[in-house]
Amino acid sequence: MASARNPEDRPVATLVAPDILDLLEEAPGAIAAETEEMHPADLADIAELLPRDKVAAFITALPAARAADVLEYLDEELRTQLLEEIPTEQAAALVSQMTPDDRTDVLEEIDEDVAEEIVSELPREAREETERLMQYESDTAGGLMTTEFVSVAADISVDEALEAVRALARSGRREATYTIYATDTAGRLAGVLSLRELLAAAPGAKIADVAWTEVVSVSPNADRQEVAQMTAKYDLVAVPVVSESGHLMGVVTVDDVIDAMQEVQTEDIQKLGGMQALDEPYTSISFWGMIKKRGGWLMVLFVGELLTASAMQGFEEELKRAVVLSLFVPLIVSSGGNSGSQATSLIIRSMALGELELRDWWRVARRELPTGLTLGVILGLLGFFRIVLWQRMGFWDYGPHYVLLALTVGTAVVGVVAFGSLIGSMLPFVLRRFGLDPASASAPFVATLVDVTGVIIYFLLALLILSGTLL
Amino acid sequence: MASARNPEDRPVATLVAPDILDLLEEAPGAIAAETEEMHPADLADIAELLPRDKVAAFITALPAARAADVLEYLDEELRTQLLEEIPTEQAAALVSQMTPDDRTDVLEEIDEDVAEEIVSELPREAREETERLMQYESDTAGGLMTTEFVSVAADISVDEALEAVRALARSGRREATYTIYATDTAGRLAGVLSLRELLAAAPGAKIADVAWTEVVSVSPNADRQEVAQMTAKYDLVAVPVVSESGHLMGVVTVDDVIDAMQEVQTEDIQKLGGMQALDEPYTSISFWGMIKKRGGWLMVLFVGELLTASAMQGFEEELKRAVVLSLFVPLIVSSGGNSGSQATSLIIRSMALGELELRDWWRVARRELPTGLTLGVILGLLGFFRIVLWQRMGFWDYGPHYVLLALTVGTAVVGVVAFGSLIGSMLPFVLRRFGLDPASASAPFVATLVDVTGVIIYFLLALLILSGTLL
Repeated sequence: MASARNPEDRPVATLVAPDILDLLEEAPGAIAAETEEMHPADLADIAELLPRDKVAAFITALPAARAADVLEYLDEELRTQLLEEIPTEQAAALVSQMTPDDRTDVLEEIDEDVAEEIVSELPREAREETERLMQYESDTAGGLMTTEFVSVAADISVDEALEAVRALARSGRREATYTIYATDTAGRLAGVLSLRELLAAAPGAKIADVAWTEVVSVSPNADRQEVAQMTAKYDLVAVPVVSESGHLMGVVTVDDVIDAMQEVQTEDIQKLGGMQALDEPYTSISFWGMIKKRGGWLMVLFVGELLTASAMQGFEEELKRAVVLSLFVPLIVSSGGNSGSQATSLIIRSMALGELELRDWWRVARRELPTGLTLGVILGLLGFFRIVLWQRMGFWDYGPHYVLLALTVGTAVVGVVAFGSLIGSMLPFVLRRFGLDPASASAPFVATLVDVTGVIIYFLLALLILSGTLL
Repeated sequence: MASARNPEDRPVATLVAPDILDLLEEAPGAIAAETEEMHPADLADIAELLPRDKVAAFITALPAARAADVLEYLDEELRTQLLEEIPTEQAAALVSQMTPDDRTDVLEEIDEDVAEEIVSELPREAREETERLMQYESDTAGGLMTTEFVSVAADISVDEALEAVRALARSGRREATYTIYATDTAGRLAGVLSLRELLAAAPGAKIADVAWTEVVSVSPNADRQEVAQMTAKYDLVAVPVVSESGHLMGVVTVDDVIDAMQEVQTEDIQKLGGMQALDEPYTSISFWGMIKKRGGWLMVLFVGELLTASAMQGFEEELKRAVVLSLFVPLIVSSGGNSGSQATSLIIRSMALGELELRDWWRVARRELPTGLTLGVILGLLGFFRIVLWQRMGFWDYGPHYVLLALTVGTAVVGVVAFGSLIGSMLPFVLRRFGLDPASASAPFVATLVDVTGVIIYFLLALLILSGTLL
């Protein structure tokens, strides 16, 4: 089965690419007919398998509308290269065939000067539309929306509306035809119905009779996460984007929502892993690009972790007196890091799903503290009995005060795990409070915070419990 | 704007719920008309805000088809409770109105005996369909698909096909109407066209003339991840599920793909955080349910981490001679854990997106080793100069052999970070090789593996570099 990225995994593309190369040499005119039945995503795969210097010839051998479709599915790097390489008029002719939202996305990726030249070559209507859409950030509803949708007056008949849909479909425009939007006399969005409902409606009915008046919509500045939540909650195939005055500005279609969801998920997982989001596939990012995205956070974390050395320096005298204490340092700090990692990933995901808002922090804190204490007691008992057992079984000699040592380790684990759960769950709220992305609260970040505190908790408990015996 | 889960965030529901309560007391017959224009997802929100003992009355006050819609959007726990509580015939009447795929999902959630009773009360056709769909695992294409779709013979005309779509739409059935599937004389899937293309086609044309013959499809046992990748790659609103003999068995619609994507993502993030997937929202899981999902992995990790204590015991003599070595243990092991966490989250996500397959392991290993070494050298230099600087500036006295100590720490960081990147990137491949979920390679799991090895690498390097001086 074909998969999304790996070129070797594309049976169709791999089979067809050599034939395309031959055709490019011998009969470029036949390429359009030969590839007629193929999905543009598969043609994009073929383009990615061709030698770089043949891609432009292949794309331009296709009819313009088809070439524009392929462009849409093409790997970003290759598309950028192609558009910057071919003559401006040709590039303008290609992108003018794309849907307005895809055209905008593509132009935002390429060199700004080249993009401006291409835009200036577009037909007037397309140019103005593109310039309007380019005002929105690409991760907002405005940046995702297309301006090609079916909007009809609420007082026309079902047949007239169906004719409008057919006209749009026949024009070759391909977006947002599965939902019909009804507007009132002032042009404001007043109702919605699906194409299925339109087809099912009695021919004589007015749109106002059959449309739903409660319309789910978003503002153009809504975050793409919010658009995704809407789509998932209401099972939409398109989310209308509405201005403050209630006018329909555009529509975000479900395919763009899915792409946005995948991007957000990739970023969230990479950030949770403790790095900057790559912004391109693992398989295509350059070596130094990778080092930059990973090295930055690693250095920050390393500098943070250097504080553990400072914290331990503060207890060097105690360490010298009781070297045995140092044996359990990695165990204790990592337990806190692990419970913190669990808590932070839970909260980040709940926030992304809209289950938790900023104001829920207290509710979460009140829940994480007992959870962390309970988990800490379970692990603390494990630690306690491990030390006692090793001593009794003769596996190791922790000295005459081994029970007190076990008690120190056990209580330190309780404290560190509870602290880890609390910090791990609160950090996403703190980041969000300061307008930062809660997903930046990575597992390694939480672990680093907890490690330093963990060392201090451990040695303070040691001083308390072991004073007069080991210390 | 309404969010997916948090009841207080649902302005519509919060406003309407008290009115519904009043109506339930005074005029339950008016509820259907009062809520006519509302989206079933909002009605489900209202049901969730009502007192538990009023939910059944509210749902059953709605027309059956509408009640079935609401049931589909209802919180799983509440829905299960409701269906187990109302009389079997009433439950059967409700679920018989649901789409086949949702009906199956709902019945799989509730008590098996109750589900069997409800199924036995279904009309024959619905019963057989449900029993057939229940054979498939819920996370496969077969488990996600609906059996309500538009399939026409390839040799009928466009007008006849449109009439078939209208008939399905008018029947009140609500699934998969946006894609029309064409079958050959043997009943095998032979073509596909979108409802938009059908509407745009010339009225006299045959379906065979306008349908695309290259059809993207999946087998009923395909994983939901694969279905999601297909949908994203080809911008589909429905993915056909085809048997080995080429017959169309069902269709997975995009709304179910989105739900599956969200579920998979939630599970992946929770697993990456080092715990079992919760399988229900953070906000609704019970205290002990949470402890179970988190405690299991924490205990496994703790037992693994106990090996660090054993490893350090092996170097107790060295530690006694040079306590200063213990100061850097948390720094060194955590650096490995952090680089491992980065690598593992990168690889897990690339696998989920289909960018990497099992056979790519060697390519990844060849890439991660130099990446890890480079990152290690950067961090190692930071560590080296931190120690030298602190000594020279008089912040701390590491003794006369501080340069050798700095060298030990620096090289240990290089080794541990490189090792962490390699282990972190290979673990998902190993898990996948043995048929396990690569996403189980959590950040804490990788950190634990690296911690134990990190301790050993550090002390072996110390023995090598510091023999004759500190050791």
